[in-house]
Amino acid sequence: MTERTSITPTHRYRNNDKAVGVGNAFWDMSERNGLAGIVAELQDGVLHTPEGHEFVNFTCCSYLDLDSHPKVIDGAVDALRRFGVLDHCIPRSRVQIPALLELEASLGELFGAEVVSAISAGVASAGLLPLIASGHLGNGTRPLMVFDKYAHVSMAGAKPACADETEVVTCGHHDVGFLEDMCKRYQRVAYVVDGADSLGGYAPVQELAELQEKYGLLVYYDDSHSVSAYGERGVGYIRSHCPIRDERTITVATLNKAFGTSGAAILLDGYAKPAQRVIERFAGALSYSQPMNTAAVGASLASAEIHRTDELTALQGRLRAHIELFDSLIKTEQTGTTYPIRVVPMSDETVIEAGRQVYEAGFYVSPVFFPIVPRGTAGLRVMLRAGQTEEQIRALGAVLVEVGALPEEAAP
Amino acid sequence: MTERTSITPTHRYRNNDKAVGVGNAFWDMSERNGLAGIVAELQDGVLHTPEGHEFVNFTCCSYLDLDSHPKVIDGAVDALRRFGVLDHCIPRSRVQIPALLELEASLGELFGAEVVSAISAGVASAGLLPLIASGHLGNGTRPLMVFDKYAHVSMAGAKPACADETEVVTCGHHDVGFLEDMCKRYQRVAYVVDGADSLGGYAPVQELAELQEKYGLLVYYDDSHSVSAYGERGVGYIRSHCPIRDERTITVATLNKAFGTSGAAILLDGYAKPAQRVIERFAGALSYSQPMNTAAVGASLASAEIHRTDELTALQGRLRAHIELFDSLIKTEQTGTTYPIRVVPMSDETVIEAGRQVYEAGFYVSPVFFPIVPRGTAGLRVMLRAGQTEEQIRALGAVLVEVGALPEEAAP
Repeated sequence: MTERTSITPTHRYRNNDKAVGVGNAFWDMSERNGLAGIVAELQDGVLHTPEGHEFVNFTCCSYLDLDSHPKVIDGAVDALRRFGVLDHCIPRSRVQIPALLELEASLGELFGAEVVSAISAGVASAGLLPLIASGHLGNGTRPLMVFDKYAHVSMAGAKPACADETEVVTCGHHDVGFLEDMCKRYQRVAYVVDGADSLGGYAPVQELAELQEKYGLLVYYDDSHSVSAYGERGVGYIRSHCPIRDERTITVATLNKAFGTSGAAILLDGYAKPAQRVIERFAGALSYSQPMNTAAVGASLASAEIHRTDELTALQGRLRAHIELFDSLIKTEQTGTTYPIRVVPMSDETVIEAGRQVYEAGFYVSPVFFPIVPRGTAGLRVMLRAGQTEEQIRALGAVLVEVGALPEEAAP
Repeated sequence: MTERTSITPTHRYRNNDKAVGVGNAFWDMSERNGLAGIVAELQDGVLHTPEGHEFVNFTCCSYLDLDSHPKVIDGAVDALRRFGVLDHCIPRSRVQIPALLELEASLGELFGAEVVSAISAGVASAGLLPLIASGHLGNGTRPLMVFDKYAHVSMAGAKPACADETEVVTCGHHDVGFLEDMCKRYQRVAYVVDGADSLGGYAPVQELAELQEKYGLLVYYDDSHSVSAYGERGVGYIRSHCPIRDERTITVATLNKAFGTSGAAILLDGYAKPAQRVIERFAGALSYSQPMNTAAVGASLASAEIHRTDELTALQGRLRAHIELFDSLIKTEQTGTTYPIRVVPMSDETVIEAGRQVYEAGFYVSPVFFPIVPRGTAGLRVMLRAGQTEEQIRALGAVLVEVGALPEEAAP
């Protein structure tokens, strides 16, 4: 028998050998130290493990604690009772019950946009980005697709599919100069970037708007980390600051973080009905797979209602106060920003042990270290929420200092 | 100013120009004739449009009508009340509430497999197939990935990502001979195929099992159209007939069709914990995006309980009786099979008008025609369900004959 062929991969846009190789070491180390693979019951905002340990989660993205708001849960229950199914299983392009349309109308009013729902922001991006790559979403011109180096994996994962529809390149983080060069060279450019980064920081919306005006740059934002937590009625960072409200800006946002429910919203401006039909029919899983279920729809309708009231302003205020309180205790690169995420610097050698001690003291913060971030930039990622108490934040601050965090000098 | 560059796409694995070009014509034609874009309220199994039209849906994949089973809806409500959130938003590889683990234990018992849950079968495939391509799921050898020509788009859509991790080819429908040739030439081959096709028909499980035994072929099945509807306790066609229960067989199935809820199940055998961790950590959206929400978990736990009782057998029996009744009325290529889908042949010229008349008579069946299927193979797709009545099926049969369907000769 002749030798059977083995295969050499191209690894142009992805590399599982590397991802699994380095990533698994990170996760195994985290899990061996009890900082991953934790199972716990949630009761009144505190997590309880079967072994009897209790802790407050400081790595939960439900920044306003709307996920456990009684009205949100009641909204889910009401919709289940009202529609009588989680989903009437048939593509919505054929027949749909009014659930998604009601939700999209409500979110459309809230965000001041045309809204298309999706089961997750990842599914939305996986479906939309190839349509942008082929020019079917946009102005009809096939663009050069420029992915920001730090674009979340839910967007970066679409590179191979996009690369079969157009040219794909990756640029430095927020490298506006590179984008302008590309805008001069290509008939059209589309830039893919987070509105708010998962390690803190916002997209350079104003500079990008200038390129949008000057060259017709299309910007695709994932604003999942700022929607609800930021802006009037929680419209998020991008809808608060981006002046370009036409086909040149497309924003997706999960409803699974500060919004407190499940699913995602695609926010569009200036796309006529035929373009929305193209999304419904051809944006990947949006056309062929299950949509948001009615429980998620009902919860989201209830959350949207809360977004229209002073309660949202109050929750945002409480979140902001908690961020400021934390900043008054611990020094980080994010100090002074509106962003609910802080990375507390630790050395590569101590970060895991520090995370373990913080967990034992009753707080879960997530250690990030090489190879997840470059050597020398390790830290404990802290997420503030409206639902934490001042006492909890002060206690966390105290234990963080004990394990080596830099106290804010002005701290009491 | 110099001419700015335009781009020529590679279109190796996908082509939006073609997909949108031909697909939009199909959908526009369907919608102009009132057979797509329908919005209707569901009441007691009948759909009601705002215009006052009533119809029974014969293109709904909830083959056992478990989607509206009171216990399924109650299960969703109970879980919402019990967990108090739709999702505690943090990657489950870090911290999770026990919801998904309970579900996976229950489904694992039901299917006799190790089960990993996913928000949809599409998300499962998009996450798993690149890991199979790189050899991280399987036996460690990077396989040639062979996609069946008719593999559902939720699998075929992963070709570009897989092609960056290994070689990808497409083979004729169920072309076992081609697969054997490839098995002789490559160290390892993985074949991607539907367990049960969306236009009727099953995968050649026995012939594939021979290749699995002889060459170590890995087969990736999507059995979404047969789970619950087929087999003891609804384990589906593949789990009923595939004798290979180890790393060489991976099956995914939606919980959104006959199972009656939301989400999906990945069914594994012989994969040790580290492999399951690799899925949890690196299978695309399974690692970074939202999981099944608690309403879907609760509904699925309730549906799994029904699967363990005689009620499931009774529902399967009713579905089978409805299929047989339909077969006694209308001749199709699927006549005599256990499959709940029938395509009633029509000419390309008459299929739309036929679908319109059937709809006006109170039944939604979905027309399929060029370019969705080849010219000369147009038809009205009918899906039987346990929850339809004999009277409805007889009435549909009568109107189908009126619009040109071939009556079964033995029909009364």
